[in-house]
Amino acid sequence: MIKPLTILGIDPGFTVTGYGVLRKQEGKTYLLDYGYLKLKPKEHLSQRIGVFYNFFKEKIEAHQVSQLALETPFLGKNVQTFLKLGYLRGALYLLANQHDLALHEFSPREVKQAVTGFGGAQKEQVATMILRLFPNLAKIGNIEKQDVTDALAVCLSGLWQDNRKRLLRS
Amino acid sequence: MIKPLTILGIDPGFTVTGYGVLRKQEGKTYLLDYGYLKLKPKEHLSQRIGVFYNFFKEKIEAHQVSQLALETPFLGKNVQTFLKLGYLRGALYLLANQHDLALHEFSPREVKQAVTGFGGAQKEQVATMILRLFPNLAKIGNIEKQDVTDALAVCLSGLWQDNRKRLLRS
Repeated sequence: MIKPLTILGIDPGFTVTGYGVLRKQEGKTYLLDYGYLKLKPKEHLSQRIGVFYNFFKEKIEAHQVSQLALETPFLGKNVQTFLKLGYLRGALYLLANQHDLALHEFSPREVKQAVTGFGGAQKEQVATMILRLFPNLAKIGNIEKQDVTDALAVCLSGLWQDNRKRLLRS
Repeated sequence: MIKPLTILGIDPGFTVTGYGVLRKQEGKTYLLDYGYLKLKPKEHLSQRIGVFYNFFKEKIEAHQVSQLALETPFLGKNVQTFLKLGYLRGALYLLANQHDLALHEFSPREVKQAVTGFGGAQKEQVATMILRLFPNLAKIGNIEKQDVTDALAVCLSGLWQDNRKRLLRS
């Protein structure tokens, strides 16, 4: 028996990290989990990375995640933020290795293209599409909502890429 | 009984990572281990990060390391290299958290200052000083030698900083 496809999508950040877990089973897509993780800015960097690692290790084990979906990072205005994002991504790559997860990586443009059909779409447009697909997300507080919808957009991109591969194979 | 001070100094890189382990015991300094790790460029990033993490996890456990010394990164010419370095640093921060290691971080200038007495010293000058202190290192191949002497320079900076703190306390 093949294990069902279960994708963890993450939008990592030191302030808020959004995540979502989708499972594809017998042609249906289930939203197993979603939410966000906030790290305490006063804690030492190594402590925060430890909290981050443990949080997603538990998610991977609890939902028997088989694939991980991430956005490729781009250098924004702040070099320190960019480097610190690398610390979190390093922890995620390590988890992918330790749990033998297949890895999907998409540029922001590819995610927008997958979810809205247009690579130059606005961030709000992506959020609107995701909220249409998963109306329960509307309950999340407005500050963190974007992080969760972004994570689910990456997650969906991974799911659809996997679908296309299966169609091409069959 | 206080555990002896054992510092692991690392100069991380995706091509070559130099490392050294120094122990301070009853007023003497011992070089317990030194060398380098090469990652296979053809392996997936997450695999290489896994190899890196496991390698240093073993070193920390084998030598009962109590402290970790690193250089603060600076943005060089290549943004991708800078980000990838963050992945390795993330794995090291995680190890520091998981093994409860005290963390020392030094700018390249501080390391040069500590080892040669002059913050503007050349890289070769640092290597010369380290080779004088640890003549056995001369056996290492020339290509990797600089990575090992850099790692030991950071390690020594950590050791001496710890010494100063003890003197101030007494």
